[in-house]
Amino acid sequence: MKKFINKVDNLLTESLTGFAQVHSDLVSLNLDPNFLTRKQINNDKVILISGGGSGHEPLHTGFIGYGMLDAACPGHVFTSPTPDQMIAAADSFQTNKGILFIVKNYSGDIMNFEMASEMLSVNNKTVLTNDDVAVINSSYTTGKRGVAGTVIVEKVVGSAAQAGADLDTCKNLGDKVNERCCSMGVALTSCTVPAAGKPTFDINDHEIEMGVGIHGEPGRRRESMKEADLIVQDMMTAILDGFKNKNIELRSNNEVLLLINGFSATPLMELYLLYNAAAKILNKKNIKITRSLVGNYTTALDMAGASITLCLLDAEIKKHWDSPVHTPAFRWGI
Amino acid sequence: MKKFINKVDNLLTESLTGFAQVHSDLVSLNLDPNFLTRKQINNDKVILISGGGSGHEPLHTGFIGYGMLDAACPGHVFTSPTPDQMIAAADSFQTNKGILFIVKNYSGDIMNFEMASEMLSVNNKTVLTNDDVAVINSSYTTGKRGVAGTVIVEKVVGSAAQAGADLDTCKNLGDKVNERCCSMGVALTSCTVPAAGKPTFDINDHEIEMGVGIHGEPGRRRESMKEADLIVQDMMTAILDGFKNKNIELRSNNEVLLLINGFSATPLMELYLLYNAAAKILNKKNIKITRSLVGNYTTALDMAGASITLCLLDAEIKKHWDSPVHTPAFRWGI
Repeated sequence: MKKFINKVDNLLTESLTGFAQVHSDLVSLNLDPNFLTRKQINNDKVILISGGGSGHEPLHTGFIGYGMLDAACPGHVFTSPTPDQMIAAADSFQTNKGILFIVKNYSGDIMNFEMASEMLSVNNKTVLTNDDVAVINSSYTTGKRGVAGTVIVEKVVGSAAQAGADLDTCKNLGDKVNERCCSMGVALTSCTVPAAGKPTFDINDHEIEMGVGIHGEPGRRRESMKEADLIVQDMMTAILDGFKNKNIELRSNNEVLLLINGFSATPLMELYLLYNAAAKILNKKNIKITRSLVGNYTTALDMAGASITLCLLDAEIKKHWDSPVHTPAFRWGI
Repeated sequence: MKKFINKVDNLLTESLTGFAQVHSDLVSLNLDPNFLTRKQINNDKVILISGGGSGHEPLHTGFIGYGMLDAACPGHVFTSPTPDQMIAAADSFQTNKGILFIVKNYSGDIMNFEMASEMLSVNNKTVLTNDDVAVINSSYTTGKRGVAGTVIVEKVVGSAAQAGADLDTCKNLGDKVNERCCSMGVALTSCTVPAAGKPTFDINDHEIEMGVGIHGEPGRRRESMKEADLIVQDMMTAILDGFKNKNIELRSNNEVLLLINGFSATPLMELYLLYNAAAKILNKKNIKITRSLVGNYTTALDMAGASITLCLLDAEIKKHWDSPVHTPAFRWGI
């Protein structure tokens, strides 16, 4: 294992410390328990708190700021944060509008966020994301996994909360966006968890893992490497089937957001090529890509690979996607 | 070799096509010859044109837009663009303020940009970047290599040109920023050029290439993997020596921009850890980091590794660094 670390045990603290220095205009870092909040706390809004295992950066810490999250609780690499982190983060705020937790559907995260939710006296609700269509259950999951669609949920709900929406509105909007997102990933290589020191799974030079999870969990199948267009065709088929399974029909002239999300180690050049491949398929179906995002947003440590997320847009989602945002990873309109 | 491509020969075209779709609000793409310009052409300014081999994205295409480049000419992977690309890009503009080419110091780039420069009737000048301090000459270079400092040159000169600075002012400012930037890279893995189909160099699981170039060119030495703090210590020593060799003394209370640039395959988590390590060294010397940038900005295909760039700031550079910019890869203030 070759990684830029000193001691494995200090990786998270040192990385968060660097992050907080670089973005000191936007975030404040608390260590032990680990959580980050917006620098400028605004209590006159629903407070959005997310979190999860580290190793998926910029998710979630990179989305703290105006128009998105109020706080994030990073666990150790691929490990859920503990309830004391969420409680300490929540205690940084004195809102009377309530707290909304945005949680990816993994058993550890759910257990710990639920515990925090129950221990808090402030009114709170939770949006659970499960946009991955690859598998029904998975290594760390009952039900579908929450993956890159979470970024879209955080942006859209973040905008609504910033604009003054109440807790129920934010919760319902988050559920709606999650429902309208379908994602599918593929891995070319494994990731290596620092504490393990070796790749999470073995994969040879001619194979891909179709439907991989963002922790290197198995997907649908191991198959031979093939042309990008064929890989994307399979991913898009899975995604379109995913919409059907949710009883959502993607029709001609529907507007979508197309997100090509790198897992970390795939060059931007290839991510844009994947975008081009996915766009060709959507164009043929006359589905309109009116919003796009290409880059590393929900990563899997050092994994080479990518996921495709399609979000079926409506006027409300578009408005909140386009609204000004100022966070370490997203900034526009400000 | 596992990459998201269809045919190696089509990689660049398909990737550029995807890029131009995603950023259709900002850039226009011309194929054959390949160049991209700003969507909103403004002829009442010095026109900034950069370019170079592909595989370093977002450099340079990601920096086209308000407050930065007017056009970029992408060559094939790690291959200089040809003069017809620069000439066609230049011909898209009807400026009477002249054209400034920003060129990284590689023999092929220099030859082709010089040829274009001579063939153009419009007044034009060139800023040559050579911020890498690792080696004096290199595989593709007479003199030092131009690397991630180029991003800072493009941002600062882009701002000045946007504000109406004349050609000489832009040229002198570009030279000044380049002179005040020192960079040093390190590779944990090789990159793989698609057309070659195999890694550019061999490196084992316990080695790093200290001073590597952004095409996988050899650096100063091959050495054993070690703790991040020790790697950064060596890189910072090289950078501080680089300033001395330019007769620039970094003094207590000097302000710097610290750029931690990923080569592609290194997770953000590790880049922020590197930032923390570099900041500790600068803090000890009482050198003030007042501007920061962490991410993948000058990449080397799929290489794992990173570079550190230090730019000695002054009021003029800070003003232009902070000014509004709206490009695919940089956006603030707009």
